[in-house]
Amino acid sequence: MNLFKQLKIGVITLILALLSNTLQAQITNDITDNEAFKALLAAKKSAEENNVLVNIAVVDAGANLKAFIRMDESYLGSIDVAIKKAKTARYFNIDTGELGELTQPGGIIYNIELSNNGLVSFPGGLPIKNKEGKIIGAIGVSGGTIEQDRAIATIGAKSILN
Amino acid sequence: MNLFKQLKIGVITLILALLSNTLQAQITNDITDNEAFKALLAAKKSAEENNVLVNIAVVDAGANLKAFIRMDESYLGSIDVAIKKAKTARYFNIDTGELGELTQPGGIIYNIELSNNGLVSFPGGLPIKNKEGKIIGAIGVSGGTIEQDRAIATIGAKSILN
Amino acid sequence: MNLFKQLKIGVITLILALLSNTLQAQITNDITDNEAFKALLAAKKSAEENNVLVNIAVVDAGANLKAFIRMDESYLGSIDVAIKKAKTARYFNIDTGELGELTQPGGIIYNIELSNNGLVSFPGGLPIKNKEGKIIGAIGVSGGTIEQDRAIATIGAKSILN
Amino acid sequence: MNLFKQLKIGVITLILALLSNTLQAQITNDITDNEAFKALLAAKKSAEENNVLVNIAVVDAGANLKAFIRMDESYLGSIDVAIKKAKTARYFNIDTGELGELTQPGGIIYNIELSNNGLVSFPGGLPIKNKEGKIIGAIGVSGGTIEQDRAIATIGAKSILN
Repeated sequence: MNLFKQLKIGVITLILALLSNTLQAQITNDITDNEAFKALLAAKKSAEENNVLVNIAVVDAGANLKAFIRMDESYLGSIDVAIKKAKTARYFNIDTGELGELTQPGGIIYNIELSNNGLVSFPGGLPIKNKEGKIIGAIGVSGGTIEQDRAIATIGAKSILN
Repeated sequence: MNLFKQLKIGVITLILALLSNTLQAQITNDITDNEAFKALLAAKKSAEENNVLVNIAVVDAGANLKAFIRMDESYLGSIDVAIKKAKTARYFNIDTGELGELTQPGGIIYNIELSNNGLVSFPGGLPIKNKEGKIIGAIGVSGGTIEQDRAIATIGAKSILN
Repeated sequence: MNLFKQLKIGVITLILALLSNTLQAQITNDITDNEAFKALLAAKKSAEENNVLVNIAVVDAGANLKAFIRMDESYLGSIDVAIKKAKTARYFNIDTGELGELTQPGGIIYNIELSNNGLVSFPGGLPIKNKEGKIIGAIGVSGGTIEQDRAIATIGAKSILN
Repeated sequence: MNLFKQLKIGVITLILALLSNTLQAQITNDITDNEAFKALLAAKKSAEENNVLVNIAVVDAGANLKAFIRMDESYLGSIDVAIKKAKTARYFNIDTGELGELTQPGGIIYNIELSNNGLVSFPGGLPIKNKEGKIIGAIGVSGGTIEQDRAIATIGAKSILN
């Protein structure tokens, strides 16, 4: 085999390898269980470091529950709030806190919270995006202040990019 | 009695005393049926003395219904309100009236009442704490004015400390 | 006015007074809170004597919750079953066990349990009758065997006659 | 060292040992988040080894959701089934498969599934017990055959004992 052929084979191999990587990345339009666990654990770690007791929920691209954890002694009422935050964030691909600005009395989508068996429209719910920026799910955090919940949700959502 | 025997008895007494204290603390994680009855009856007595007709609900540490009474002629609609007040108070370990200050239009957790199959966020729901200050359940009172409901709930919640 | 007329008036007055008493008794077509407590306590005492852990619910003539107690360590799932047994018994003025004989596959009211937000059609729910035999509410017991539940419910229902 | 000192040290050691045991027993009334994670991961590992795709839910002693994971490509409909299996197992402290034997047409608690917002009465839900044998929560598995679900749930429930 001459050098040219060797080079050609090498190049084709490289192209296939690159394509394969791209294709692999392309089909990840839904969060995996491992990514969901990763988001849960990163969020939980952040909550523990900041002495906040939270419930953390992750939903997939279909807004269906993918993973959940309730930290010991966190609010019982936050189970449902965390799940609803995650679902709300995915239902409308939005930071739940931004949604809340539109749902107040006089707002353009006043009382939309009554749809979908109940939305939550204050901070703590965020879409989860993959490296290509595509939304693959969402995370909801409840139990701390709304600022703490949003900060913890942000850490969880970004953790899957590492 | 020689020194050895005296020492032995003293030590055994000490062990028993320490164990006894530890065990007492151990069993007070959840409200008992007798405590729940006590809270109901104290609240009902207070309502009768003040000529208020109320529904009274007690939930346990898991926010599950533990005890309930509806006074004759009290509002039928207050059955569910009293139960939801008790659950809300335990869901978020809070005086339901304080929760309501945060859920108004413009409030930081506006419309959270839509979560958990419906919360109640005006006064009349209170956590119940044991002598060690640990929350072991909650009480909800509905039927009077919100001030009356809160006052009656307070008497019910505190009654288990006597 | 002669003696005859005086007598007539006296007799009519007497009749009216007697009727009034009768009518007063007649208007108690709804269980009182004291009767509901009495039924709860009698049922609970019977359960304790037989070492059964149960939930006990009493509903009024309108099938609305009147009183409830969950014994320590009894089933969490029996909260709802006890309440539904009491409601079912009053909805159809029937021993819930008798209802169940009609709701089986092939039965004349197959799957009626799906109505009314869920009925319970096995033993443990019984109407509560006053001394005149009028149904004034119902009791539901859940946590033991169906025979135990029915026996305890019977004791609770009959207790208000004493 | 004289006899007195030896005795003193021995006694103190004994006290500490006894207290330690008592305290350990004290904190195991409800499943912890770490235990819930442990059960999830053990169950998931078993499912993967057996090429089964399942949803796994863990509830606490109050039957409230504690942890959850949905494996990639597992049934969407199994999210709710897994959660309801876990809740059912804790509601009645029972293997859900054993419950199902009693709820068939003609069974002594026919149609009890309609209570508690829907129970699941086939295998895959199991109480979780601590080392002292006390029920501290429950696990529900759904997605495989009922035999697989039960086997995976068993592994999850037992994992916390190690």
